Amino acid sequence: MLSKSQVKYIQSLGQKKRRDEEDVFIAEGPKLVSELLQEKNVVIKEIFAVKEWINANKGSLSKAIVTEITDSELEKISLLTSPHLVLAVVEKIKWQNSYKLNGTISLALDTIQDPGNFGTIIRIADWFGINQVFCNNHSADVYNPKSVQASMGSIARVRLEYVELVDWLKENKGIRTYAATLDGRDITKMEKLNEGIIIIGNEARGIQEDILRSANVKITIPKKGRTESLNAAVATGIILSHLI
Amino acid sequence: MLSKSQVKYIQSLGQKKRRDEEDVFIAEGPKLVSELLQEKNVVIKEIFAVKEWINANKGSLSKAIVTEITDSELEKISLLTSPHLVLAVVEKIKWQNSYKLNGTISLALDTIQDPGNFGTIIRIADWFGINQVFCNNHSADVYNPKSVQASMGSIARVRLEYVELVDWLKENKGIRTYAATLDGRDITKMEKLNEGIIIIGNEARGIQEDILRSANVKITIPKKGRTESLNAAVATGIILSHLI
Repeated sequence: MLSKSQVKYIQSLGQKKRRDEEDVFIAEGPKLVSELLQEKNVVIKEIFAVKEWINANKGSLSKAIVTEITDSELEKISLLTSPHLVLAVVEKIKWQNSYKLNGTISLALDTIQDPGNFGTIIRIADWFGINQVFCNNHSADVYNPKSVQASMGSIARVRLEYVELVDWLKENKGIRTYAATLDGRDITKMEKLNEGIIIIGNEARGIQEDILRSANVKITIPKKGRTESLNAAVATGIILSHLI
Repeated sequence: MLSKSQVKYIQSLGQKKRRDEEDVFIAEGPKLVSELLQEKNVVIKEIFAVKEWINANKGSLSKAIVTEITDSELEKISLLTSPHLVLAVVEKIKWQNSYKLNGTISLALDTIQDPGNFGTIIRIADWFGINQVFCNNHSADVYNPKSVQASMGSIARVRLEYVELVDWLKENKGIRTYAATLDGRDITKMEKLNEGIIIIGNEARGIQEDILRSANVKITIPKKGRTESLNAAVATGIILSHLI
């Protein structure tokens, strides 16, 4: 049984300001919540789930406060259009140690604004074994419910850092940077990378001028047809599949 | 100035049933509408736009009925969360001639249900020069506003056919089929294709059993990290970038 204040609290977490104040985010659906339950660096504070889900997952819920709810209560608190069995309130991910750019490949995102794209890119990074992504402060919020759902459990495996991207790239100019553009080197003909920062631009405007100018190598996905561009997440997937 | 019945008419086109009855769809935003205006096989019936857009595009509007509207009227009729300058009512695309499977590469989509993914896949096909995509009848509607926006102008360049996919594949079994799975041949080590049908499965369930069993080759994107799967559109982009 849900109280009115619980409903209000959960619904309020759809807003970034409230997520920041509470230092938590919402994750929904059996697949995502099960993945998060298995990650050591994830603290699930509260779980709201239907009986069926609770019974099936009893063994793995030791630390979270679990509240049994009905389907219609789930509909009330869900931020999704099709709520499904379980909703969890999760502490924002804490990362041990600092990141490392030497000898690794990192992604840098210049103002990816669509939360779905943003989460999808985190998931792609995870697929290709990239475990750190940097993005500038005007990017989407990774804890936006749409980012969280699109990233699936990868949100807990890929470290995301918000930085002032122009300054951050200057500070790290010892590391080679590869900027995704429409007029660079053909990625299908390049050698695999062992180290570097791959920069992906905004969905509509691409990479900003001052970042582009300082990049070491411009890279491009060769085109055969007529469409002008590819979705930013799709482009990221294609680039990583050729360079990693 | 918009009449009440115009507002009602346009809003109703958010529903598939009404789009089918009227044989039209909605396209929004200056980039998409400009692309469609340039395609010979596209008939734009009506354009609702703010003054600024009409003045800038006067030369190319000969056949469409153009109605000047205000920003707040545009907000009323728009199906997007951020309406932008122009909305067009467009006749569903008519394709001349029949499709051709010999000597070409085609995509077959097994129940892609998210309209955004669906439109993104059409755009990816266009990028890689694929001009025919087949999908089963339970797939998303390509004329759903979200598909249209995600596909951009590619909706007018890539022929889409709704078919009973299982039967259709049987009828065309002379053409080699490549099924995207999690346990097939590594696409990064395959030769480029000159002919064939590449099958992409549903976002959650993958390709259905009876299609999978009859596919000639199972193909896979090699994974380095821990996430279970990739978004269907991202996977399509990666596969095409390696095999075409």
